Amino acid sequence: MSEKIWNHNKIAYGGDYNPEQWSEDVWQEDMRLFKLAHIDTVTLNVFSWASLQPDEETYQFEKLDKIMNMVRENGLKVCLATSTAAHPAWMAKKYPEILRTEFNGMKRKFGGRHNSCPNSLVYQKYATRLASKLAERYQSYDNIIGWHISNEFGQECYCENCEKAFRVWLKKRYKTIEEVNRVWNTSFWGHTFYEFDEIVLPNLLSEHFEEERSMFQGISLDYKRFNSDSMLNCYRMEYDAVKKITPHIPVTTNLMGFYKPLDYQKWAKYMDFVSWDNYPSYNDSIAQNALHHDLIRGLKSGKPFILMEQTPSVTNWQYYNALKRPGVLRLQSYQAVAHGSDSVMFFQMRRSIGACEKYHSAVIDHCGHENTRVFREVTQIGEELDKIGDRILGAREEAKVAILFDWENWWGIELSAGPSVELKYTDEIIRYYTALHEQNIATDIISVDEDLSRYQVVIAPVLYMTKGNYDEKIREFVKQGGTFVTTYFSGYVNENDLVITGGYPGKLRDILGIWVEEIDALPPDFCNYFDFDGEEHQCQLLCDLMHLEGAEALAVYKEDFYAGMPVITKNVFGKGNAYYVGTRSDKQFYKQFIKKICKECEIHPAAIVPKGVEAVSRKTEEKEYLFLLNHEEEEKKVTLEKDCVEILTETEYNKGDTVVLKKRDVVILQM
Amino acid sequence: MSEKIWNHNKIAYGGDYNPEQWSEDVWQEDMRLFKLAHIDTVTLNVFSWASLQPDEETYQFEKLDKIMNMVRENGLKVCLATSTAAHPAWMAKKYPEILRTEFNGMKRKFGGRHNSCPNSLVYQKYATRLASKLAERYQSYDNIIGWHISNEFGQECYCENCEKAFRVWLKKRYKTIEEVNRVWNTSFWGHTFYEFDEIVLPNLLSEHFEEERSMFQGISLDYKRFNSDSMLNCYRMEYDAVKKITPHIPVTTNLMGFYKPLDYQKWAKYMDFVSWDNYPSYNDSIAQNALHHDLIRGLKSGKPFILMEQTPSVTNWQYYNALKRPGVLRLQSYQAVAHGSDSVMFFQMRRSIGACEKYHSAVIDHCGHENTRVFREVTQIGEELDKIGDRILGAREEAKVAILFDWENWWGIELSAGPSVELKYTDEIIRYYTALHEQNIATDIISVDEDLSRYQVVIAPVLYMTKGNYDEKIREFVKQGGTFVTTYFSGYVNENDLVITGGYPGKLRDILGIWVEEIDALPPDFCNYFDFDGEEHQCQLLCDLMHLEGAEALAVYKEDFYAGMPVITKNVFGKGNAYYVGTRSDKQFYKQFIKKICKECEIHPAAIVPKGVEAVSRKTEEKEYLFLLNHEEEEKKVTLEKDCVEILTETEYNKGDTVVLKKRDVVILQM
Amino acid sequence: MSEKIWNHNKIAYGGDYNPEQWSEDVWQEDMRLFKLAHIDTVTLNVFSWASLQPDEETYQFEKLDKIMNMVRENGLKVCLATSTAAHPAWMAKKYPEILRTEFNGMKRKFGGRHNSCPNSLVYQKYATRLASKLAERYQSYDNIIGWHISNEFGQECYCENCEKAFRVWLKKRYKTIEEVNRVWNTSFWGHTFYEFDEIVLPNLLSEHFEEERSMFQGISLDYKRFNSDSMLNCYRMEYDAVKKITPHIPVTTNLMGFYKPLDYQKWAKYMDFVSWDNYPSYNDSIAQNALHHDLIRGLKSGKPFILMEQTPSVTNWQYYNALKRPGVLRLQSYQAVAHGSDSVMFFQMRRSIGACEKYHSAVIDHCGHENTRVFREVTQIGEELDKIGDRILGAREEAKVAILFDWENWWGIELSAGPSVELKYTDEIIRYYTALHEQNIATDIISVDEDLSRYQVVIAPVLYMTKGNYDEKIREFVKQGGTFVTTYFSGYVNENDLVITGGYPGKLRDILGIWVEEIDALPPDFCNYFDFDGEEHQCQLLCDLMHLEGAEALAVYKEDFYAGMPVITKNVFGKGNAYYVGTRSDKQFYKQFIKKICKECEIHPAAIVPKGVEAVSRKTEEKEYLFLLNHEEEEKKVTLEKDCVEILTETEYNKGDTVVLKKRDVVILQM
Repeated sequence: MSEKIWNHNKIAYGGDYNPEQWSEDVWQEDMRLFKLAHIDTVTLNVFSWASLQPDEETYQFEKLDKIMNMVRENGLKVCLATSTAAHPAWMAKKYPEILRTEFNGMKRKFGGRHNSCPNSLVYQKYATRLASKLAERYQSYDNIIGWHISNEFGQECYCENCEKAFRVWLKKRYKTIEEVNRVWNTSFWGHTFYEFDEIVLPNLLSEHFEEERSMFQGISLDYKRFNSDSMLNCYRMEYDAVKKITPHIPVTTNLMGFYKPLDYQKWAKYMDFVSWDNYPSYNDSIAQNALHHDLIRGLKSGKPFILMEQTPSVTNWQYYNALKRPGVLRLQSYQAVAHGSDSVMFFQMRRSIGACEKYHSAVIDHCGHENTRVFREVTQIGEELDKIGDRILGAREEAKVAILFDWENWWGIELSAGPSVELKYTDEIIRYYTALHEQNIATDIISVDEDLSRYQVVIAPVLYMTKGNYDEKIREFVKQGGTFVTTYFSGYVNENDLVITGGYPGKLRDILGIWVEEIDALPPDFCNYFDFDGEEHQCQLLCDLMHLEGAEALAVYKEDFYAGMPVITKNVFGKGNAYYVGTRSDKQFYKQFIKKICKECEIHPAAIVPKGVEAVSRKTEEKEYLFLLNHEEEEKKVTLEKDCVEILTETEYNKGDTVVLKKRDVVILQM
Repeated sequence: MSEKIWNHNKIAYGGDYNPEQWSEDVWQEDMRLFKLAHIDTVTLNVFSWASLQPDEETYQFEKLDKIMNMVRENGLKVCLATSTAAHPAWMAKKYPEILRTEFNGMKRKFGGRHNSCPNSLVYQKYATRLASKLAERYQSYDNIIGWHISNEFGQECYCENCEKAFRVWLKKRYKTIEEVNRVWNTSFWGHTFYEFDEIVLPNLLSEHFEEERSMFQGISLDYKRFNSDSMLNCYRMEYDAVKKITPHIPVTTNLMGFYKPLDYQKWAKYMDFVSWDNYPSYNDSIAQNALHHDLIRGLKSGKPFILMEQTPSVTNWQYYNALKRPGVLRLQSYQAVAHGSDSVMFFQMRRSIGACEKYHSAVIDHCGHENTRVFREVTQIGEELDKIGDRILGAREEAKVAILFDWENWWGIELSAGPSVELKYTDEIIRYYTALHEQNIATDIISVDEDLSRYQVVIAPVLYMTKGNYDEKIREFVKQGGTFVTTYFSGYVNENDLVITGGYPGKLRDILGIWVEEIDALPPDFCNYFDFDGEEHQCQLLCDLMHLEGAEALAVYKEDFYAGMPVITKNVFGKGNAYYVGTRSDKQFYKQFIKKICKECEIHPAAIVPKGVEAVSRKTEEKEYLFLLNHEEEEKKVTLEKDCVEILTETEYNKGDTVVLKKRDVVILQM
Repeated sequence: MSEKIWNHNKIAYGGDYNPEQWSEDVWQEDMRLFKLAHIDTVTLNVFSWASLQPDEETYQFEKLDKIMNMVRENGLKVCLATSTAAHPAWMAKKYPEILRTEFNGMKRKFGGRHNSCPNSLVYQKYATRLASKLAERYQSYDNIIGWHISNEFGQECYCENCEKAFRVWLKKRYKTIEEVNRVWNTSFWGHTFYEFDEIVLPNLLSEHFEEERSMFQGISLDYKRFNSDSMLNCYRMEYDAVKKITPHIPVTTNLMGFYKPLDYQKWAKYMDFVSWDNYPSYNDSIAQNALHHDLIRGLKSGKPFILMEQTPSVTNWQYYNALKRPGVLRLQSYQAVAHGSDSVMFFQMRRSIGACEKYHSAVIDHCGHENTRVFREVTQIGEELDKIGDRILGAREEAKVAILFDWENWWGIELSAGPSVELKYTDEIIRYYTALHEQNIATDIISVDEDLSRYQVVIAPVLYMTKGNYDEKIREFVKQGGTFVTTYFSGYVNENDLVITGGYPGKLRDILGIWVEEIDALPPDFCNYFDFDGEEHQCQLLCDLMHLEGAEALAVYKEDFYAGMPVITKNVFGKGNAYYVGTRSDKQFYKQFIKKICKECEIHPAAIVPKGVEAVSRKTEEKEYLFLLNHEEEEKKVTLEKDCVEILTETEYNKGDTVVLKKRDVVILQM
């Protein structure tokens, strides 16, 4: 068995449990039902600040003591939350400074959750103090396997405290006001600042005219960094507080996938392990679901993660809260495990009766008993996870292909005024990822800090912002034989969104062997075309008008005044190749393009499987586990390439045998 | 003749008259034109506060005296308004507290109308004082037939005064903060309150993220009750003020149909009679128009009401203000009378020349004379109402079918987070009502306070909230032989939006003989199907997954993983039957379903008429009047089932005769 | 050569130049590139306030001196801006009163541009002082050919200072509060004011419920006048400041076409010449582009104007920033000149590297050199303009047709509540203009102040507001033989949006010989029809129901209850004719209708050309220049009606010769 991320000897099974919402007689019934469902882990104390601390000086832990004791007596592991994601009402009344201010400048009142200004000293003081007190009180409970700081950190604040803190942050980053003026290009529109305290937060009352549309991208970009850092600072204060007392317990906070406001790649450096909450929409593709797991796994360079929350069936907050069809919960649970999760956890154990999440489903429904479809499905998974035991824990996926994803680049692209409001970074990521996923090519989602040498192919869609000497990293990678792929709107700016002059794609120009002279934004329903590998493909959104400077054209535009100009190019650079895709194309193109590159690089899928079956592999030092997930409603057959054992049914297979996957079925083959 | 709702000896004919907008020479011309058009009633003084009270101490009634005298001399009845729906500008300047605060937290400035905070003591003091002064001054005018308090009460306020008043209201309702915590389930998201003054109003700055989407339904629900009560309190203060001086004059305020913010069923208890303003859209159906009248009539258990306003032709505030086609005004006027109105009244008598209602039509148009299509149509109705005289006054419709409609249930359903944002209570009411209306089945719209014993069928679409022991009332009704119909998303919560655990539909489960395990929300364009009475019907929006517990399945789902599960059920309970419709279906289904139920219960239409003809009956103790309204553009023929006299033309008919209705024609048959 | 609008001996060529954003070594390269491209004019100092004035007392002109000297040494003309369109950050911090307040009542913070409250005394003081200082310092530079006050004046402010200034403005305009009450019709909804300081600004917190939807049109209309006047006042203060020192330099500010908040017809009275910024959308028609130029030319009764800005290729702020196709820049440049511009100028000379306009294109792109498609196109135009020399300067277009456009009428129509939200004034202007333009009929866009006697046809679409005795002007025009055309929703109100009673179209009734009794607003997808000149046409949006009072019906409705009523009428009045179009029709109708009228009036096109070719003529006292612009992508041929010389190629043509226009080509024929 490989490295463990927390102190559990199997894939953790359980989730958020809120006994404080119920009378004690219900608790005993819960314990009975948990056993039935093979639940072994509960996340406690997520939203109890107001009840733990009735006023500024008093703390009352009696109820939590009871709960902690009960779950320990029942053999449950605990992921202990610090309760700081929603401050008490009395605190908001006494110290209004802890309330957030909206993007439109309106000061909030008490309500909701994630409601605290991250730069409120009052909030910081009492949140940290509560974390310390919890650590002190429960340090001796050896069933605590992880700290869960706050909950789903997020939101933004535009209050006066934040404005002051922003100036301090800027001074630390840029030292002088002259440097601020330089990086923000304030000679534009007469924005020269003479003192730090002339600077105000960029929002709807200052530099923005829409949520994501700013008049000064440099200011808005720094605000995004600052806001992410402010929240991170809150997280770190609590981290330090609990770590001081319980250094042996690993610490996390639950993330939310592609959550734009927080730079999770920076956050992950300060987390012992990463965990996240998975809430796909009814119309998300299988590939999109997989991508989120791979993003999270990439935050810690491939180390396993914790799936902290998923719903057993419905959510309450989507517009149309469709039921998870029979088998879908199990499929999604194993998809998480296949992509690196060492847990299967739910929000929530028992469905609440009041407020907005009462129609979010739970292991134990409003009817209160075990005779429900959902409870039966939960129980089946519980039984299976018991069978799996410690076998998969710590195992990793090994990928030869990486997709670069960078939060600051995301902010930069979408703050951009021009060339097209429809350009969305994650859309591009999804297009490339989907092509890889549908061919069952293991893929890592990596940050700019990641070492590239372990990959054969690095794809960096829309690498708009080339920070520091990241171009040098790519140059070295390609020189050494790597294959690099990038697209239109790449290489434009530095980390301050200042254009790199001299010709696009800036510092990537020599690697790619091209010069992009112009970029044409196509209005909706406009289209150009090119041929690639014998088929015609569409150009949409943006079309680069480029000149070859060493590269060869793999495809040219067929229409408009730039017919004949290159649209897809390949440049041999050192021992490697650098591809450039100068437009957004159709699904079929991405599929063919990825196929061609993988073939060139001799990269193979995790397994040869029919369409609709996902094949993912996790490996420890000794063993390999191949997950086959049939996402279709029909039976599928897979011919095995090696001898193996299916670990849920303990069936043995020989090379050449056929394994039959019923509709929405999962098999896990130990090779 | 039955009970009269105000002191008039015929169906009142007239409407809002604002001579204060005109010079006195115009007044005389108005008198001449009123006589021409057979106008006998005017609503005066609707918006005159600023001119009646130029400052805090001064009142000037001279102009109103002149107007009052003139109309009395011209034999007109008066519905006298108290003018308090728009406060004077000087008052807003001197006492900014009277200005409302918006849902987004912004304090308003002077402007518009319905602009006063209902919890402003300044507003309450001066509004009540003005009402008293008017009563004192005009108490001797025996042509005053009704008080018209304020005008179209409405809006919401989120100011600090309201916040304080909300806490007082809560304390009165719940006594202790512990009880508030319980009913709001504040253990969720750490919302525990320790003192009442920690509570803030639920709006965009606290618990809401959209107008109707709240994080704490319990708080938002109580705010809606509180706001309705606050407005009602203002109404009642004025009511008491005028009643003290003129106890003989009945009091009303003009309502607005399905106006969500105010619980008209509660309001009606404090009104001597109800009145309302009817402004159908060009694309409202005939049934929708009828439903509104029936809703209003139901507020006073079937007592006649006053149609206080309708437009002679166009409105100004709709997006597309299409003309009422020739004959439509007459049809809509008699539809109101048929459904219980003892008046036909207009907004407005003379079209104003400035501000936003100048393009709202009037009896007297901007051209100023009588030679207009609209004036001729108005005159024809006036002549006819003279002919009708006192004959229909006080007569009532007798219905054997009731549809339950409950304001608090409305708020509860639409505040709900999940299962589908598209679930709208009135949509469901309209579906069932339309099926009844198109078969000319007399229907009452009743509140939860209504006695059920006089009905054979009670339909309660989406009875989400079962308040107090209303389930017991239904149980008794069915036991005694009644037929009860309800639908998906029923029986979920109590009056505080707290889920009734143990299995849906909660307290209705034994009556219906079913258990609903899950509810599937269908995204747009998703559909399931079932067969009923030999035809296939659609399932949309929501699909219940239910188990029979004594009921029989009348139809089952045909598709998806719940194919074969019941969707329509019938339970024999005591001497009666309880039906459950587990989905939203198509128009044809509702028609067949209602037909089947009416057949079983031997409920008959008001008359046998061709499609497009509406038949409605009003009865006094001695007489019955059958209204036949041809809403189509072609001639229709109706064979009469009894001897009768048409009272507009004084034509006598014998049983078996055919009455011919020209396009958009109306006949009123005294049976 | 005719009158010159500024001191230049050719069509000015250049644009906005911001060397302050670059280091000095770049400046020299700019000078080299300007020469290459035949640039001769630069607009300097548009956004430098913050750098010119670092604090309340200090001014530093050293950098600007260097720039001014450099451009003078390089033989460039200067259009010198006053830099007051964006105040310094230090000023906003020290004097928050200079910040604008939004329509929703929120006070802005520092940021953006056009960010100053026009009624801030601080802003007025320092803006005027800066203008004076610039005039003093640079008065001796004889290459300054124009003052460019501020930049694109615009926006609105709703702060307390503006509220007070509004009351002063009202007092000046109306003298007494009684008159204010009369013109605003405040007896409606109890709005009577007793003192001026009870009046508040009409915005989202007072009289508006949407941006353009007001409860009191009279108040909102006066606010629009006031706001336009407030901005104008700022302009005039700077005008006076520079004029005092440099009376010989003409003064302008750059306008924005149909910019609704500012009454440019009033502004133009205070400008020595008008200039504007032309940014067509990818989907604007050729006619729309031409209309804007004609609007601007009309502001000074046909005098030439300056095209101050256009983009060499893309903008940054549109949703889809498509490239200008090859040749389009040249076409659009000559279209401007053809319609009266004595310049071809760009925003911007060198593309900035940071903030929101970095993806707006420039003569010098981010690549920094001249080897770009755009630079080559710019150079070609530069060479041609050198060839043209002073030949066209001051020449004017001579039109026999005028379209009336009135800003106050625009405000009035679109503030109107009813009859249809889809009625937009400029839509109607475009429909009539397009029909004229596509037939190459020279057309002036005139204000109500313009003398009508020089026109044969005056078209006044939707002349809703008949101000003062403008009806008398029309009456006289028609009596003397003119042809007048107007439409539905005309003649309704006076300048205070008070209805003119007695019958629509009010004071125009005798001229048109009709009475409009009713107006029907058609919901989307509703339609009526009429026949005209042998073809069937559609009626949409609005349909007048009118009676003939002397006019003859040229067409009648074919459907609905008003089938047979007139829809298009003609009235012989004095020696002239007055036409009325009672609905919105289709493109084909306007074409035929205009053709018929031009035929009757013997008005001829500028030239007989094939479809897609625009023909426009400019004349000096001695010479005529005929511009032929081929907007199509195919070659076109034009047969010449006179002998002439093409001045770009110096080709001589004889009458009857054919000139060939390549795709997107331009020829300029000196006749």
